[in-house]
Amino acid sequence: MKVRQIGEHGWLRAVLPHLAAAARRRDVLVGPGDDAAVLASAGRPLVLTTDALREGVHFRSGWAPWPLLGRRAFRANASDLAAMGAVPRAALLALDVPPAMPVRALTAFVRGFAADARRHGAALVGGNVSRGARFGATVTLLGTLPGPAVTRDGARPGDTIFVTGRLGAAAFAVRALRAGRAGRLPLPPVRLRAGVRLASLASAMLDVSDGLVQDLGHLCRASHVAARLDLALVPCVPEAVRLGRAGRLVAATGGEDYELVFTVPAANLGRLARARLGCAVTPIGVIERGRSVRVVDAGRAVRVGRVGFDHLR
Amino acid sequence: MKVRQIGEHGWLRAVLPHLAAAARRRDVLVGPGDDAAVLASAGRPLVLTTDALREGVHFRSGWAPWPLLGRRAFRANASDLAAMGAVPRAALLALDVPPAMPVRALTAFVRGFAADARRHGAALVGGNVSRGARFGATVTLLGTLPGPAVTRDGARPGDTIFVTGRLGAAAFAVRALRAGRAGRLPLPPVRLRAGVRLASLASAMLDVSDGLVQDLGHLCRASHVAARLDLALVPCVPEAVRLGRAGRLVAATGGEDYELVFTVPAANLGRLARARLGCAVTPIGVIERGRSVRVVDAGRAVRVGRVGFDHLR
Repeated sequence: MKVRQIGEHGWLRAVLPHLAAAARRRDVLVGPGDDAAVLASAGRPLVLTTDALREGVHFRSGWAPWPLLGRRAFRANASDLAAMGAVPRAALLALDVPPAMPVRALTAFVRGFAADARRHGAALVGGNVSRGARFGATVTLLGTLPGPAVTRDGARPGDTIFVTGRLGAAAFAVRALRAGRAGRLPLPPVRLRAGVRLASLASAMLDVSDGLVQDLGHLCRASHVAARLDLALVPCVPEAVRLGRAGRLVAATGGEDYELVFTVPAANLGRLARARLGCAVTPIGVIERGRSVRVVDAGRAVRVGRVGFDHLR
Repeated sequence: MKVRQIGEHGWLRAVLPHLAAAARRRDVLVGPGDDAAVLASAGRPLVLTTDALREGVHFRSGWAPWPLLGRRAFRANASDLAAMGAVPRAALLALDVPPAMPVRALTAFVRGFAADARRHGAALVGGNVSRGARFGATVTLLGTLPGPAVTRDGARPGDTIFVTGRLGAAAFAVRALRAGRAGRLPLPPVRLRAGVRLASLASAMLDVSDGLVQDLGHLCRASHVAARLDLALVPCVPEAVRLGRAGRLVAATGGEDYELVFTVPAANLGRLARARLGCAVTPIGVIERGRSVRVVDAGRAVRVGRVGFDHLR
C-alpha cells in the first residue's frame, strides 16, 4: 500500500499510538501527537517542536521575498509552541539548498529567520546544510513553559470553541498567486503572549496549520468529543466575507493561518473576557458529545468537501 | 553569485560569524558553528543538534534496508552529541515523504529510528510530515551534558590527534554501490560513552561526517592551529589498506564514518591510555602552529585533491 492511499493523517493515526507508547517515560510529559512535546526539566518544562517549509510544497519561487519566507518559517513553528502555552528560547535551522541558489537569497532567508526568532526570544544556535533539488528549511524550536501546558485532549461537551485573529489570508493569497494574479504570502501572526495566557483558561488548544475544520477534527479526536462549528461566526478576511459561504469555506479549510483554536469551559469565560491577549478572540462553536465536526451556517448543516490539507494525498 | 561558487563551507564561513554574534546570550554556552549548541539550564546544560538524511544525496533507494536507514539517521545525529560529550534524551523526526512511498517502508524507517534512539537513551517525542519528491528525514536531538562540553576550538600546538574506531567503511560501500556491485551502507558506530569520557581529556573534538581531512581542517580553523596528519597511521577498513595510499586517501576524505577526532594535550595522554572508552583510539598526527592540514605518508607530503564532501559543490 502507498502512503497516498491512507494519507498523512491516516498514516499518523496508525503509527502514533505505537510511537506514543514507546515514548512513555517519566520525563516525557507530552509525547508524539500534539503541537509540541513537553519534557520535564530541573527548571521549567522544556517544549520541542519541528516543522518544514519547502519550495514546491508550501510556496513557489516569487511568492514572497526571501526575508519574509524566513520569518514565515519561524512563525509557523512558533505557532506550535504558542498552542502549548510555551515561549521559544532556541532555534535550529536545517536547510536544503539547490547549488544554483543565489547566495544573497539564502543569506536573506537565514537572516530573516534569525532576526524574527530573536525578536521573539529565540537564539538561532545551530543548523545543517544539505544539497537539495529545491529549497527547503526544517525548523526546530526549543521553548519553555512559563505556566501550564495545554494539550489537544482536554475539551469537554459544553465548552465554547474560540479562534484568535481571523482566517483565510494565506488561502486567498495562494489562490491569487496560483491564478497568476499579483500578491504575496502574508506574514503569519505571532500568538505567543495569547498562548501563554490562554494556557490557564483553555481546556484544549492547537494552531490552525492545515485548515480549521481538519485541525478542529484533530482536537475532537484527541478529546473524544464532537464539535459544532458555525461558519457564519468564523472571523474571516474581507475576500472570504465578500464571497459568502463559499469564501468562508475556503477560509475554514485553507490552512497556514497559524491562529489558535481553543476550547473554554463555561467557568472560565469571564476570565477569558478580561484576559489581555493582544489579539481578538471569537466564539465559533461548541463542543458536544460524539466524534465528529459538524459545520453549520446560521443553524443549517453545510457539507464540507475537503476539510483541510493532507501532505500525502 | 550562486552558492555552488562558494560551496557549503565557504557560505558557512561567511555567514557564521554574523549568526554567532546574534546568538551571543548569557544562556547560549556554545552557539552556531560547532557539532551542537549548548544551552544553560537549571539542571545540566542542554545540547541541541540537527542533521538530514536525504535520498539522492546521502543514499539511493536499495542501498540499505529501511530500518537500517532509520538507525543511520539517528546515529549520524547522535555522533554530533558524542562529539560535544553529550548524551541524547529526546528526538524529533521531520519527514519528507513521496506520496507513492510504500507505507511499510515509511513505518520501518520510523520504527528503526525510534528503536535505536530508545536503546541509546532518547525518546522520539515528535516530528513532522511534509510531501517531498524524494524521501528525506531531518533529525533533531536534544541531549544533556553529564560532564564538561568539548568544542572544536581548544586544540593547541603539541597536542596529539586521535581518531576512534577506523575509517572508510561508508566510502567503500558507496563506491561499490555506485559501481553496481553488491553491498549496503554500514551501520555507523555509537560513540556516546567514548564522547562523555573524552570530554574531560580532549582539548578539542568533532565527529567525522564529511571526511577526516576536511573535518580536521574545521577543527584547526576553529582552534587557530595547523595539523600534521600521518596517513600511514590512520586506522582504515581492510579494503582501504589493500589499496595502499590511494585507499587510505579514500578513507581519510570519504566521510560518513561518524567516528570521533580529538586532540589531547601531553598532560592527559596517561589518563587517555587508562580510559575505558568502549572502542579503539589511534594517534594519527599532531597539532602544530599555523593554519592548515598537512597530510604526510611515512614522513613525505601527500597532495590531497578533494578533502571531503561539500553539499553545494
